Amino acid sequence: MRILGIDPGLQCTGFGVIDADGPHLHYVASGTIRTTAQDMGDLPARLKVLFDGIGEINERYAPQTAAVEIVFVNVNPQSTLLLGQARGACVTALVARNLPVAEYTALQMKKAIVGSGRADKSQVQEMVKRLLQLPGIPGKDAADALGIAITHAHVGQAMARLAQATPLKRATTGMYKGGRTR
Amino acid sequence: MRILGIDPGLQCTGFGVIDADGPHLHYVASGTIRTTAQDMGDLPARLKVLFDGIGEINERYAPQTAAVEIVFVNVNPQSTLLLGQARGACVTALVARNLPVAEYTALQMKKAIVGSGRADKSQVQEMVKRLLQLPGIPGKDAADALGIAITHAHVGQAMARLAQATPLKRATTGMYKGGRTR
Repeated sequence: MRILGIDPGLQCTGFGVIDADGPHLHYVASGTIRTTAQDMGDLPARLKVLFDGIGEINERYAPQTAAVEIVFVNVNPQSTLLLGQARGACVTALVARNLPVAEYTALQMKKAIVGSGRADKSQVQEMVKRLLQLPGIPGKDAADALGIAITHAHVGQAMARLAQATPLKRATTGMYKGGRTR
Repeated sequence: MRILGIDPGLQCTGFGVIDADGPHLHYVASGTIRTTAQDMGDLPARLKVLFDGIGEINERYAPQTAAVEIVFVNVNPQSTLLLGQARGACVTALVARNLPVAEYTALQMKKAIVGSGRADKSQVQEMVKRLLQLPGIPGKDAADALGIAITHAHVGQAMARLAQATPLKRATTGMYKGGRTR
């Protein structure tokens, strides 16, 4: 299963692509989409950069599913609105290409990657490097995006274990007829 | 010039299409895109409804340009974030189809349509009805979207007048060599 993780932002959106082969994770690609060039223009133009950038990543790496970080409400309401629009563009770029989109908070990601929701960015970077056996530390936005992709891989594994376990339960208890595992 | 106006919202996005033929405005279509059905699913699914809905409108009415209302910061930060994402999806749906996107605040629209930034929604509905010679009052979201489209038509007319006036100024004063009108 190839997973595209996205850490959305208006100025800088991180992306990370991994392959999840059962419990084994393989790094494919990561990087950032930047909309801070001086000649970038207004908000619609910047949202188009995000839409087109994610389109390029989708074409090049052909992920089968995507996961996007749930952004936080900012101190500044105007920034919240801008961040919301950037995230809206990112999610739209994925669903427009018919990719399933899962969503995780930074807290969920940090718990999955580092083991603690209070982990700082450098701890996420270090753990992502270890989990994917990278030769160096990834950038902060790319590390967050890879962390989101890894979180989704973990959830997928847990779901798969659950699906495997369910027929057993059915056989032993006889109570799960017609039940759904998800 | 065919103009598509959009009043973005997560639950209900208004749209309005008009033809601007110099100072003459003609109604083409209006309505709402709703994402409130019970089986609609999560946020990504709702943003896809907005993306696909605007795509349908674009295919059916083939506007040449678009204008989107600049949304306000809400009292509730979480609502601001959701509204931002909905607006991001709407703007992305337009730029993804290579439509130029202008942006106007509700204040600018009300001033252009009613003559006062303090006009309420019913006054906007009434003036939109008169300006477009509609047989009935349009719904609130559709009226706002038509109002945004009309505002853009007015700005286009003012720009055209400015472009016509500029050569005269150049000829009489000789001071505008190399100047830009926009």
